[in-house]
Amino acid sequence: MQYELYYWPTIQGRGEFVRLALEEGGADYVDVARGKEDDGRGIPAVMRILNGEDITTPPFAPPFLKAGKLIIAQTANILLYLGPRLDLAPTSEAGRIWTHQLQLGFTDFVLEAHDTHHPISNALYYEEQIPEAKRRTNLFLKNRVPKHLGYLERVIERNTRANGGGKGHLVGATVTYPDLSLFQMVEGLRYAFPKAMERIEKNYPRVVELHDKVAKRPRIKAYLKSKRRIPFNEKGIFRRYPELDA
Amino acid sequence: MQYELYYWPTIQGRGEFVRLALEEGGADYVDVARGKEDDGRGIPAVMRILNGEDITTPPFAPPFLKAGKLIIAQTANILLYLGPRLDLAPTSEAGRIWTHQLQLGFTDFVLEAHDTHHPISNALYYEEQIPEAKRRTNLFLKNRVPKHLGYLERVIERNTRANGGGKGHLVGATVTYPDLSLFQMVEGLRYAFPKAMERIEKNYPRVVELHDKVAKRPRIKAYLKSKRRIPFNEKGIFRRYPELDA
Repeated sequence: MQYELYYWPTIQGRGEFVRLALEEGGADYVDVARGKEDDGRGIPAVMRILNGEDITTPPFAPPFLKAGKLIIAQTANILLYLGPRLDLAPTSEAGRIWTHQLQLGFTDFVLEAHDTHHPISNALYYEEQIPEAKRRTNLFLKNRVPKHLGYLERVIERNTRANGGGKGHLVGATVTYPDLSLFQMVEGLRYAFPKAMERIEKNYPRVVELHDKVAKRPRIKAYLKSKRRIPFNEKGIFRRYPELDA
Repeated sequence: MQYELYYWPTIQGRGEFVRLALEEGGADYVDVARGKEDDGRGIPAVMRILNGEDITTPPFAPPFLKAGKLIIAQTANILLYLGPRLDLAPTSEAGRIWTHQLQLGFTDFVLEAHDTHHPISNALYYEEQIPEAKRRTNLFLKNRVPKHLGYLERVIERNTRANGGGKGHLVGATVTYPDLSLFQMVEGLRYAFPKAMERIEKNYPRVVELHDKVAKRPRIKAYLKSKRRIPFNEKGIFRRYPELDA
């Protein structure tokens, strides 16, 4: 089956967590909004589903995935569906629940990272909330990044212990979709806060090691070099505003 | 099986979405942190799991549910697990995915409601971020509440149409766990923003009707009258600060 990913075409955003899973899983997929309108793709194709009166299960927002007749929205929900199908999650119920639980932690972490530059509202420009953004980012870097990375470090450590050592993944002895999200989270934080991350990430060696391990996987490596990978920019979740990087 | 819910004992918070499902489902459960320390319950029982070095799948934060050997965290993940077991979700994969997708929308909505009074950081008191809270709440009530309630209204409308009319639920023709969360969300918004909600909710008659329908269900009605239901207060997600209710 060919999967259809619907997400904004000019940013990594939340869609990137799905793109990484589709790429690592070697899935046959189309990034619909990045196609041509003449071919029935582009942003109008996204809007047709978002606004379509005939859709019984409408998404609240992109990203969403079309898989045959199914339309699945919410990043973590898409990954819950794709995980076992792309061999990126355990098949047991307990394993799937745990993997999804970790992913929902990334959902929270991603939103917290986003709100550093939009603490008041998405309806305002960044330039209309800079003092608030500075205050929020300061405490995000001081409290929240260490809390999230510390948690991930602990999970890798315990999982490695449970699996007889040496593997360094979040779940089991192979790559699963939260490993890919960890990679993306570290990439994003490094992009947005290069100075702060250089200081912070030293304390989480297992997290950094897992990030590096994911970066070296052949399909991820090829993807990151390709034009399919949209560069970071100041429209997405992770934005480089030097005044916030303290 | 007796379920064990682990959540802070003095607030409704995120745990309430799980409590409502356990109550409506007639589940045998213990609200562990509300028990006595002498019986091995209370907050120390929560901390033992949060900080236990021997837990291979540690929760990031409460709420979490113990179901036999499983420890499941993240509100929406707990409901994903409980849904089919308590007859509060469809059993088909497509139905379960859609129900979970709606619940993840509530996860977002709840966090947005929380951040109205804590737009800068949880590490600061409300009193340290009042001007920011006023700015954020104003746009939350103007943009986000209508967006979320408008979406829920649309889902109820389309689902009712698909089910031959007259049912008014979010999923299918019977109550599912997102219906319970819709009830809680409306209750919380009315508590926090009585003036604003009186004005806003008129535009979403199907949402209000579904709220009322849930409130009248015998088990929910009995629960709301019982001491098991913790009253709203200014420590939880929904807080009544009159200066924010505009």
